Amino acid sequence: MTLDSDVSGAWLTREEMESARQRLPILYVDAVPVRVDEAGEVTEVGLLLRADEEGNISRALVSGRVLYGERVRQALLRHLEKDLGPLALPRVPTSPQPFTVAEYFPVPGITPFHDSRQHAVSLAFVIPVEGDCQPRQDALEITWMAPHEARDHRVLADMVGGQGTLLQHALAHVGV
Amino acid sequence: MTLDSDVSGAWLTREEMESARQRLPILYVDAVPVRVDEAGEVTEVGLLLRADEEGNISRALVSGRVLYGERVRQALLRHLEKDLGPLALPRVPTSPQPFTVAEYFPVPGITPFHDSRQHAVSLAFVIPVEGDCQPRQDALEITWMAPHEARDHRVLADMVGGQGTLLQHALAHVGV
Amino acid sequence: MTLDSDVSGAWLTREEMESARQRLPILYVDAVPVRVDEAGEVTEVGLLLRADEEGNISRALVSGRVLYGERVRQALLRHLEKDLGPLALPRVPTSPQPFTVAEYFPVPGITPFHDSRQHAVSLAFVIPVEGDCQPRQDALEITWMAPHEARDHRVLADMVGGQGTLLQHALAHVGV
Amino acid sequence: MTLDSDVSGAWLTREEMESARQRLPILYVDAVPVRVDEAGEVTEVGLLLRADEEGNISRALVSGRVLYGERVRQALLRHLEKDLGPLALPRVPTSPQPFTVAEYFPVPGITPFHDSRQHAVSLAFVIPVEGDCQPRQDALEITWMAPHEARDHRVLADMVGGQGTLLQHALAHVGV
Repeated sequence: MTLDSDVSGAWLTREEMESARQRLPILYVDAVPVRVDEAGEVTEVGLLLRADEEGNISRALVSGRVLYGERVRQALLRHLEKDLGPLALPRVPTSPQPFTVAEYFPVPGITPFHDSRQHAVSLAFVIPVEGDCQPRQDALEITWMAPHEARDHRVLADMVGGQGTLLQHALAHVGV
Repeated sequence: MTLDSDVSGAWLTREEMESARQRLPILYVDAVPVRVDEAGEVTEVGLLLRADEEGNISRALVSGRVLYGERVRQALLRHLEKDLGPLALPRVPTSPQPFTVAEYFPVPGITPFHDSRQHAVSLAFVIPVEGDCQPRQDALEITWMAPHEARDHRVLADMVGGQGTLLQHALAHVGV
Repeated sequence: MTLDSDVSGAWLTREEMESARQRLPILYVDAVPVRVDEAGEVTEVGLLLRADEEGNISRALVSGRVLYGERVRQALLRHLEKDLGPLALPRVPTSPQPFTVAEYFPVPGITPFHDSRQHAVSLAFVIPVEGDCQPRQDALEITWMAPHEARDHRVLADMVGGQGTLLQHALAHVGV
Repeated sequence: MTLDSDVSGAWLTREEMESARQRLPILYVDAVPVRVDEAGEVTEVGLLLRADEEGNISRALVSGRVLYGERVRQALLRHLEKDLGPLALPRVPTSPQPFTVAEYFPVPGITPFHDSRQHAVSLAFVIPVEGDCQPRQDALEITWMAPHEARDHRVLADMVGGQGTLLQHALAHVGV
């Protein structure tokens, strides 16, 4: 999970959003961007390099909140465009069934997922992208790596909030 | 979707919850209670008879909100116990992957699902129940019927907010 | 299921294949070709018009056998190319998880699926196609229709062996 | 995969089965037996200890062939009873959708799965068992361990043919 740059343009003030975050589970989407070959097999996984407010660098999935009145599909497209740029050509799956649901709790240890700001429940999808990716906003860079490299413990150790676990679940789902 | 009897005992006042419902998607679970044979095949589907605030009778799935700090699994158990009683012995699936995600919008027609009170996003599961079911609270009765009876258009017509569609999706998922 | 045009070029003579069909479940794939919008939502479903050996016309999904030594992904690509032509640009899903498994038995009534020639077990996938479709071989034509048209009972009645049921399961899986 | 004790009682002689194995993909099921708590969360994973024909000991999942005319559900029940005894009370899932499909090839390296005897395509399921397990036939013992123990590299190294990978995929699917 990342700085929530949604808030400014959304239906709640920052104070109202902070209040809601103490009282309701917040709906998120997580997307694992991948490159695939013509048979649909994953050849590369895309991980973002991000800097948080204190300047710490971490690797991250594409992730963000679903807004009031927004379809889950539209939320996926919006966050993919925000993080990968307008030319990424993501292929959002036909089915609304996520490969898993990640429950991020403010207290660590309840699940593998943790978000100190909130209780977030995230629908997770693997998303093939076919176009050019140009990271924007707080994403410094996107790194493409082979699936076996993405599973390396040093890569996973650079991910926070349990996203390394979520990435492993995604790789298991696609059979690698 | 039904009268939200969670609100009284929860973390928000009724006014705060009403306010949140105008501003955030609210996380729900939907459960389709089923009886299964020893090979796991669905033999019966359980539908609740409910009365709304105006006294209209409808058929419904087990459905309700996920509370702040609550696991999705616990929310399923809580709503199943609330609607089917403490002796129903529901078998919550091992995987957090729902068979679908139903997006209920306050405006009809965006998806097959509609809830005039709110934008609710619901994780839907088929749940075998092995024990005795004793409807409680606002559920008047539970009716068990064979899968092909549950698919009858007269049964589906008694369901509101698109839950008839969700029931059909559930029956497709279990292969009947 | 359709005339098995695989047999001629495969690892078994027609007699050996006939013999195996009386003794082993035969592995198949079923593909539901769809057109999607940029958010991944299904806008059209593609159904083949086929003629069987007696000249009966029916509507059908893309369907065929998995060969010895062949990946499931490759079998999907091969049958999609055979039925839709080489320019269809199918997007085979990243995950090997089918949306359902259809069990076709030589005796009707055991499952919704029936194939008088054999016991076939089919992994079923929804496959977006982005290119031009030019039906070949025994497929006379491909008809694209909106999801609600595909669910019409007259369309479903033109499908044989339970493929109408499988199409309904596919539409449920994609949320329409 | 294990010694195929199905063959003796089945529809093919050993020679015919050997011949089919050189010419057709053979349909299998793999089952990961688990213990769950009342909320459906996996608390323990059951692994078999097996001896192969040369007396090598390995850990294994419940696995076996689907017979001609047999439902996938019945094949799961039959292999679970064969390996865990008649009192195991397995809870076969309501949906025919496997969590993954494992493609075992006679040549290693095509997929993570390998079976020197044949090209087998296996539908994989996580199966809660509620009763007493008494290993039979060629299974020497069943060992229950916590999910994090089952993921230990020493445990996974005792599994052959890629079943360690399949176990990891199963654990990812159930969210641990």
